[in-house]
Amino acid sequence: MTLEVEQKFPLEAGGGTPTRAEINARLARLGCQWSAPVEQVDRYFAHPARDFAETDEALRLRRVGDENRVTYKGPKLDAATKTRREIELPIEPGKEGLACFAELLEALSFRPVREVAKTRTPGMLDWQGRHIEIALDEVARIGTFLEIELVTDEQDAEAARVAIQSLAVELGLTRSERRSYLEMLLEVDS
Amino acid sequence: MTLEVEQKFPLEAGGGTPTRAEINARLARLGCQWSAPVEQVDRYFAHPARDFAETDEALRLRRVGDENRVTYKGPKLDAATKTRREIELPIEPGKEGLACFAELLEALSFRPVREVAKTRTPGMLDWQGRHIEIALDEVARIGTFLEIELVTDEQDAEAARVAIQSLAVELGLTRSERRSYLEMLLEVDS
Repeated sequence: MTLEVEQKFPLEAGGGTPTRAEINARLARLGCQWSAPVEQVDRYFAHPARDFAETDEALRLRRVGDENRVTYKGPKLDAATKTRREIELPIEPGKEGLACFAELLEALSFRPVREVAKTRTPGMLDWQGRHIEIALDEVARIGTFLEIELVTDEQDAEAARVAIQSLAVELGLTRSERRSYLEMLLEVDS
Repeated sequence: MTLEVEQKFPLEAGGGTPTRAEINARLARLGCQWSAPVEQVDRYFAHPARDFAETDEALRLRRVGDENRVTYKGPKLDAATKTRREIELPIEPGKEGLACFAELLEALSFRPVREVAKTRTPGMLDWQGRHIEIALDEVARIGTFLEIELVTDEQDAEAARVAIQSLAVELGLTRSERRSYLEMLLEVDS
């Protein structure tokens, strides 16, 4: 089973959270390689028979430029990081591919919940012999966050968690955010 | 909305149904162009919250060689032909693409119901100014069938039904089969 192990930290939020400039300097010192920023638009869907907010799952269509993907995320499996089962696959590109998949989901009674739009700057960092994914996310209305992520399997999940947490400590990131962007935006909406 | 208008007729089944040789001769006379036979393996899924058998819907993963597609079929909209909403889109090719999509559906609590394997010989026929799709299907355990199909929209659906029914009459096909292959196989199973 493919697992996503992830921790997310607010930046520029006061209360000891680092600024972007501080985190950029620390990541640069560790050799982080950045890619160009991309606009990601995620559309989340509600399941016809269960409350994903209660079951802690998510079903998402993501558009990045012309590329589209569908992603299922299972419930979080531990308390500190956000380790969860992830199933992700590409779907037909372009607006039409996205619209057709959304139409399929809606015919099956999945209901669109909300869109989450963000600018993501992806980075890659070698840490303790692993390639760790970094994402600097600017999310309208809720702020700037740094995500640290590894995609792994069940055997390696605990070691992956340790690696991510030690990197977070090295970066001076202590106040992790367990809520998803969707959850935060729904709270801001209400 | 994309609609599939379809009629299906048993061949070689006695009771006045034509033989394959007879139907081939009649189709040849009308200029039917055949393509090479293909093996199609369809895996049908049950919805987590409603009984597709009762609602007359279907969700299917189809494998044809290395290509995969997902298809939703809505309830039949008329009594004579099988006119129904159809949403179909390609998914990642190969065994892995199919397995990954099936895993996504099962994580969302769709349950695999049954596989339907058949050899389909596709044909194309010009009839009353339309390109009509023909399929000669050999389905293990339930026999040989000829399908006549048009993909159209709501405005054209009635005219498409008339065209298909007149072609069926021309081909000497009178006893249409409204059940799906899946329904027939489930009846044979039970």
